[in-house]
Amino acid sequence: MTDPVRVAVDAMGGDRGSDEIVAGALEAASSAIQPILYGSPGLDTKGLPLVEAADTIGMHEKPVEAVRAKPDSSLVAACRAVGDGDADAVVSAGNTGAMLAASLFHVRRLAEVDRPAIAVVLPARAGPSVLLDSGANADARPEHLFQFAQMGSIFAEEMLAIPDPEVRLLSIGEEPEKGNQLTLEAHALLAAGDLRFGGNVESRHLLSNAGDVVVCDGFTGNICLKLLEGTIKTLLDGMREEISSSTRGKIGGLLIRPAGRRLRERLDPDTYGGAYLLGLRGLAVIAHGNSSRTAIANAIRLAARGVEHKLVERLAERLGTTVLASARPETPSPQAR
Amino acid sequence: MTDPVRVAVDAMGGDRGSDEIVAGALEAASSAIQPILYGSPGLDTKGLPLVEAADTIGMHEKPVEAVRAKPDSSLVAACRAVGDGDADAVVSAGNTGAMLAASLFHVRRLAEVDRPAIAVVLPARAGPSVLLDSGANADARPEHLFQFAQMGSIFAEEMLAIPDPEVRLLSIGEEPEKGNQLTLEAHALLAAGDLRFGGNVESRHLLSNAGDVVVCDGFTGNICLKLLEGTIKTLLDGMREEISSSTRGKIGGLLIRPAGRRLRERLDPDTYGGAYLLGLRGLAVIAHGNSSRTAIANAIRLAARGVEHKLVERLAERLGTTVLASARPETPSPQAR
Repeated sequence: MTDPVRVAVDAMGGDRGSDEIVAGALEAASSAIQPILYGSPGLDTKGLPLVEAADTIGMHEKPVEAVRAKPDSSLVAACRAVGDGDADAVVSAGNTGAMLAASLFHVRRLAEVDRPAIAVVLPARAGPSVLLDSGANADARPEHLFQFAQMGSIFAEEMLAIPDPEVRLLSIGEEPEKGNQLTLEAHALLAAGDLRFGGNVESRHLLSNAGDVVVCDGFTGNICLKLLEGTIKTLLDGMREEISSSTRGKIGGLLIRPAGRRLRERLDPDTYGGAYLLGLRGLAVIAHGNSSRTAIANAIRLAARGVEHKLVERLAERLGTTVLASARPETPSPQAR
Repeated sequence: MTDPVRVAVDAMGGDRGSDEIVAGALEAASSAIQPILYGSPGLDTKGLPLVEAADTIGMHEKPVEAVRAKPDSSLVAACRAVGDGDADAVVSAGNTGAMLAASLFHVRRLAEVDRPAIAVVLPARAGPSVLLDSGANADARPEHLFQFAQMGSIFAEEMLAIPDPEVRLLSIGEEPEKGNQLTLEAHALLAAGDLRFGGNVESRHLLSNAGDVVVCDGFTGNICLKLLEGTIKTLLDGMREEISSSTRGKIGGLLIRPAGRRLRERLDPDTYGGAYLLGLRGLAVIAHGNSSRTAIANAIRLAARGVEHKLVERLAERLGTTVLASARPETPSPQAR
């Protein structure tokens, strides 16, 4: 039997408090997954290992400043554990910017990656679609988008088992000449490159059939992700409201409840749990700030799956670099220090 | 009684063919609205006035080139009619880029507007929300976003009767320091300006409560608009599919049908019909390429409403410019020439 995958979990991140995160970690713990919680001294971890962290980074602190000022925060310590080889992956539902900054500093970039990107797997009707960058880089250059395409392709192949994935460029029209300066230049790079490039795709197809990999700058990706989330919520709420405005509707509503639940589950971000930060020398997963225990458990499983698939090693090999982080150490699990 | 508002309608634009457009124009025609069709010689206009246009611009032609090469196309001729004072407004469901180019050339910009913008009224739950730019300028500078905010404010006040409208800047976080280079600089301009600026808003709120006016560059706005459209469609389709997968669901589906219809109607782009092109010396409305006759009729009514509210004059006054286009001529309605 192999050692369990050690996942460092920031117990202090997220909007719902540490109890919810401990509950999620407990749910994910198994013979194959060993969550290690990073949190305040004395935190009740229900028997899971705790690494005490003196500090906490708030959701609205300025990322780079916070990471610099609080090296002993749970978020930074959990990232450092991956850099130091004390954990195989890190998961946080905390401040996304701080997670990015701490990962860059303590997990570090792969040698050939200029900008790590956040990759989210969208539950499109035609099959999963990897959207990146979903928010790591608010401004990006055409060559960054090309690198996102490379990383997304490798991700789709290794993690989603899609052979020879198709890459599309998110833009405001399918014709190559439609877009802004960034997408026009990125289109030219992608068309000249050796990935399977399917041209531009419009955002209207993101939930139906946008292609295996969809690339864009992090501002656009983040706008899309939040718009999807908000629209799904508003629409399902609106449907419930319309239904409950009449007796006939209420009876109908009861009858379609299982159908509604299936749809909600398929589209619920909690089912997916988190987003990978691609381009680092170790595995980092960013969970939604509002994650429930189920979402946290799924994010931890997502992180473990990345380790099992050797995602970082595959990215490093196929992008032509080598993993420079220390190999997995002998000791199976660190104790509180 | 006042003369009817003369709306020049491009009968050859859109995906559904000229019959659908003629039907929409017929539906909108009234004692207050006189649609004038611009289309191929011999087009059956069911009694509405026809101005014969020798040429047609296709949906996928390159905008500027097409407008230059085809001065006698229905789209260009309809725009020219407004510039020449032969019509009070123009409506086209054709090539958006060509509509923009032809409007800039023949209707022309207001003196103090650098970049006209497409304004779409979103049916948010908390009330209508004006999103601009929805696609006229794929790249924009911070001062353009400021101008969009000014135009959007005036629009919300004059057309939607919202006193002292609140302006929000679309970004990837509510904090002023969250965003890309463009939104960071635009935020500073808006915060220093004299509009009622409510700070950044995230895309997740676009359909719920994003504020009276939401500004962004045309790339981002167009991405949002198409994503909203696609997500609503995918979600309603998904709901129908889940419901019809069981007998119980089918019965429930019949019972909630009126509720579903109400929701669909509230969110259907056809109900709104079109988008205003703001910042010109005349009134131009861009209808959706896939417009049904209802959508065309609504777009024509939208255009007429803009004329009745003297939207262009109000914009010109309040932006501190004067309308330089020729005043409405004596002859009430042009005949086919």
